Amino acid sequence: MDIANRNEKNPIIVPADVVPSVEGAVVECVLNAGAFKFNGRIGLLMRVAERMEQVEGELSTLVADENSELGVKVVSFKLDDPKLDYTDPRVFSYEGVPYLTTISHLRLAWSDDGVNFEIEERPLLTGSGKMETFGIEDCRVTQIDDTYYLTYSAVSENGVGVALQTTKDWKTFEKYGLIFPPHNKDCTFFEEKINGKFVALHRPVGADVGGPYMWCSESPDLIHWGNHDCIARTRIRQWDCQRLGAGAAPIKTDKGWLEIYHGCNDESRYCLGAMLLDINNPTKVIARSDEPIMEPIAEYEQKGFFGNVVFTNGHIIDGDKVTIYYGASDTVICMATMSISEILGTLV
Amino acid sequence: MDIANRNEKNPIIVPADVVPSVEGAVVECVLNAGAFKFNGRIGLLMRVAERMEQVEGELSTLVADENSELGVKVVSFKLDDPKLDYTDPRVFSYEGVPYLTTISHLRLAWSDDGVNFEIEERPLLTGSGKMETFGIEDCRVTQIDDTYYLTYSAVSENGVGVALQTTKDWKTFEKYGLIFPPHNKDCTFFEEKINGKFVALHRPVGADVGGPYMWCSESPDLIHWGNHDCIARTRIRQWDCQRLGAGAAPIKTDKGWLEIYHGCNDESRYCLGAMLLDINNPTKVIARSDEPIMEPIAEYEQKGFFGNVVFTNGHIIDGDKVTIYYGASDTVICMATMSISEILGTLV
Repeated sequence: MDIANRNEKNPIIVPADVVPSVEGAVVECVLNAGAFKFNGRIGLLMRVAERMEQVEGELSTLVADENSELGVKVVSFKLDDPKLDYTDPRVFSYEGVPYLTTISHLRLAWSDDGVNFEIEERPLLTGSGKMETFGIEDCRVTQIDDTYYLTYSAVSENGVGVALQTTKDWKTFEKYGLIFPPHNKDCTFFEEKINGKFVALHRPVGADVGGPYMWCSESPDLIHWGNHDCIARTRIRQWDCQRLGAGAAPIKTDKGWLEIYHGCNDESRYCLGAMLLDINNPTKVIARSDEPIMEPIAEYEQKGFFGNVVFTNGHIIDGDKVTIYYGASDTVICMATMSISEILGTLV
Repeated sequence: MDIANRNEKNPIIVPADVVPSVEGAVVECVLNAGAFKFNGRIGLLMRVAERMEQVEGELSTLVADENSELGVKVVSFKLDDPKLDYTDPRVFSYEGVPYLTTISHLRLAWSDDGVNFEIEERPLLTGSGKMETFGIEDCRVTQIDDTYYLTYSAVSENGVGVALQTTKDWKTFEKYGLIFPPHNKDCTFFEEKINGKFVALHRPVGADVGGPYMWCSESPDLIHWGNHDCIARTRIRQWDCQRLGAGAAPIKTDKGWLEIYHGCNDESRYCLGAMLLDINNPTKVIARSDEPIMEPIAEYEQKGFFGNVVFTNGHIIDGDKVTIYYGASDTVICMATMSISEILGTLV
């Protein structure tokens, strides 16, 4: 089942629309955008993945560099240097120090109509500090009062964790470091306190026992988190049997908190589904999609850097309509709308 | 190098000393004890691992059961039941529900001299609630003022995380749920605030990038944690190249915080080493053992359920002397003493 109304202009943002952050860099993918409203406009905080154009006989890549005005610097190695180990196409090492061949930053795009976006020429946020040397990815933007909370994947040789920054004006940012240690991704905040506590969904990964499941945690201040509770596991033989993770902030409805999430099966096919959480106790899952509410069926959702993927981490609510911004095939940004009551109708 | 003075009575506690928690259960291992002082006595909060004696044609195991007076219940399945899947010796499943063949609880032992222990006949704490269905393991006990903080591994089908309970009298306990989500273990608190914040060491595990590294985090209340920082990674070709994790609470010295930790190499040989952390900024590692300060060299450290292991999560400080309680070969509890100044001498 697929109840998404795809925009006829899809994909609405493609890599060729994005100016590389440094000379010689190639924008490989623009994907997985957080979405928010600010000063009457719609903003997308997009993930831009770049790699360096390669010169013969050399291997070059980008690393985050907070001391550089560009936020990144280029490092190059001679392919015949015996200290270089580059057997894996995604990661290589020099004298034991690892590097990724592709790193991501976050870039803003602005729109009045939610479809036609003006993309800023420079990155908004690049990896900074030792927890973000390999870049930052997949940001959820949650607004609580007049503050925007940015929760994103911080990638470094230390692992992948969830970092937090806040802003009120989209010009100055406050950093709070990692709020969830590795391995963790797919973190979104609820937009209001529940029983006097802030609440987050996130996606740690078990080892030995457990797996990539959805968890719910609480906080007095949005910076320190505890009372971690696993609320949804993968389901054997179903569309979300291999992994799952939260999308953007849960939507408050009179039936409960509606969370649109991604799930992936054994063929690494990413679909969207929905979960209904108890309004007073969001660790209680009232209902969950037996079938996806959105599947990779359009050509741009099936072919790309990593095909058969629809993945969302940003939406805009307008009454019963939810406008979903989603990454398709890990390559482009697309848009679709759904009716909230129709999603609820599939659940209960 | 090995600077440990092993007690001549080692091992001081063996499985045969421990009364099983239910009829038909076999104590397989008694290991990895937290250590503390209470009312002038030394207490060990030991991990006791049990399995069920097997009846022919059946497969029985224990699961945590908070509604049972014993804290656990026995579940049995017919081996010819087609719903039973028992190909793995450590874990099996019935109708898709997983079970472990061995589960652990925490049991107290008391001593006046620190060598001869009286073991309680009943478990003190058993797994309780959905995060501890497969038991609880490897508890660190940290005393801050008159409260004892118990940080231990909570094991369930949701993964392995770190849970917190507190007590003042070793009779009544307050539960605070998971303070670190999966995969996480080896958590100890510092015994005082640093720069106005409580501090913990713990051991999350990265996926894709990162690994089983030591992290340091801070908290306003010991329940909610943030500002997670990786402070020590595995070191290629060294004794701690495969994984590492904190032992008991860091020891305050005039050189800095001294943390005795375990490391493991590619042959899964577990040794103890030391780390010196800056007194005002414990995320800063001043020095770290090039060579272990204790290695599995005694016979009881080399042979057992899982050989070649010395692992500590409990110690008692008396002036310059640290008495280390440690699990040997994952089977028995042993004791050794070291001079703190001698450990520091190996570091700086």
